[in-house]
Amino acid sequence: MNVSKTAAIYKSIQQTICRTLEEADGTGKFTEDAWEKEIGSGLTCVMQNGSIIEKAGVNFSYVRGNFNENMASLLGENATNFAATGISSIIHSGNPLVPTIHMNVRYFKLDNGSSWFGGGIDLTPMYINTEEARQFHQTIKTICDQYDISYYPEWKAWADDYFYLPHRQETRGIGGIFFDRIQPSDARDFEKMLNLTSELAKAYPLIYTRLMKDNGHLPFSEAQKKWQKIRRGRYVEFNLIHDRGTKFGLESDGNIESILVSLPAEVEWVYQHQPQPGSPEAQTQELLKKGIDWCRFE
Amino acid sequence: MNVSKTAAIYKSIQQTICRTLEEADGTGKFTEDAWEKEIGSGLTCVMQNGSIIEKAGVNFSYVRGNFNENMASLLGENATNFAATGISSIIHSGNPLVPTIHMNVRYFKLDNGSSWFGGGIDLTPMYINTEEARQFHQTIKTICDQYDISYYPEWKAWADDYFYLPHRQETRGIGGIFFDRIQPSDARDFEKMLNLTSELAKAYPLIYTRLMKDNGHLPFSEAQKKWQKIRRGRYVEFNLIHDRGTKFGLESDGNIESILVSLPAEVEWVYQHQPQPGSPEAQTQELLKKGIDWCRFE
Repeated sequence: MNVSKTAAIYKSIQQTICRTLEEADGTGKFTEDAWEKEIGSGLTCVMQNGSIIEKAGVNFSYVRGNFNENMASLLGENATNFAATGISSIIHSGNPLVPTIHMNVRYFKLDNGSSWFGGGIDLTPMYINTEEARQFHQTIKTICDQYDISYYPEWKAWADDYFYLPHRQETRGIGGIFFDRIQPSDARDFEKMLNLTSELAKAYPLIYTRLMKDNGHLPFSEAQKKWQKIRRGRYVEFNLIHDRGTKFGLESDGNIESILVSLPAEVEWVYQHQPQPGSPEAQTQELLKKGIDWCRFE
Repeated sequence: MNVSKTAAIYKSIQQTICRTLEEADGTGKFTEDAWEKEIGSGLTCVMQNGSIIEKAGVNFSYVRGNFNENMASLLGENATNFAATGISSIIHSGNPLVPTIHMNVRYFKLDNGSSWFGGGIDLTPMYINTEEARQFHQTIKTICDQYDISYYPEWKAWADDYFYLPHRQETRGIGGIFFDRIQPSDARDFEKMLNLTSELAKAYPLIYTRLMKDNGHLPFSEAQKKWQKIRRGRYVEFNLIHDRGTKFGLESDGNIESILVSLPAEVEWVYQHQPQPGSPEAQTQELLKKGIDWCRFE
């Protein structure tokens, strides 16, 4: 019952996200692709070529079925059946001065008694603006602190570790929060986590609306656009090599176009690209590291 | 001794490949980055922004060291030390009418008595020209047949299976050959495989020179260029998700810029892109499947 209730709430929030983003973008519209497979159903909402948003995917899914060996080894659990629901979203802006953002909330339940929430939200600016970074982290911290003041610091560190490219020795962006396997202890605790994940998912399009309003209409140069495409290459590397959701989707015969809608529209790879020392690009690159306390960054 | 001899020959062929490609391109030049790490050394040759070649990498390496647990489980062998040498190369053309090509030859030796050759060469046209595909496969078959007539059919099927994207249910291109763990039975057999791999590596730039001469100066449209970038997205998916050499390199703390020089310069992902039925793009997509006998294709 908890899963279908969560699914209904998440599905409704998916619509809120799309409508809010459409209004903020002005011209871009989401197309809706409903899909049904044996494993369950979903709705993939995609915007391409809006006035500020170049490509955005907002995926909802509600799946259930046999708990197979792959899942057992991945999750370290034994069970017969599972059910899961979630929203997963990424927004890529055409303007290099507006960051890429990602948000995911999910609820997973097994018939062995285990159930948990997971999710996160993280920001990938091509040009790190420390005031923007501070606001982003403060907004998330404020939401988390209402529920438990231990959440933000724990989940912020978790995001630093998760959104990391070991082969580049750099973080994907300025991070945010990441959490997984948060098991509710009782019905009240379930409601708390459902509220927390819902609040994060609803804050997501508002955070992005602000980022679009602040920088979406600023002019940018060819060189800035090229830097954006190179940084997007790192995003592709992360998603295809490391991202657990992408891996899980590819291995479990998921809806391939929904899974890979997270990839940016235009990407470049340049051999041994190094920004000019002291340039804004170099300053951004120097800040792609773990452990920065963005809420207090000066 | 066999490894250092093979390394010397491969290293010399690397130079031949670069000089041949420079001459055929006309304006593009290879830069050379020599690298040395505890594990060994290598030379990464890269051409960017030639007149036809947009990006090409020709990597040589000669490494040796402790045979660690990762390698043991990957290779299913027990040994204390290993040595390996090889050439690995990819060429991306700016003109969508000229295919992407890949070639790799390698020799691996363990101190437990095991040693083997591996490698392959495969072609990825954005627009499949069946006569060009026939010539490509026939050229490789002719080389292989001089050594053993069982090689081409076996290795062609191996390439079909290896250069395959299960999540797209399509081959990377028109394939070619792929072989691994070909263990020489004696000194004469070693020479045979050294000659075969050398001959393949030397044929590689000549094959590409012909492809450049045939189509490199043909005009192309914006739509054809866009299709090329979308197809390159599949190439990136293969290399980052499936390619064993890339995986091995990323996991073994290899030279990251040398490993990822294989990625194309400009790439696009479009949600649910489908070519027009009956178009040249759709015809190409229909031919991205295993088991086509390209030497006899009509």
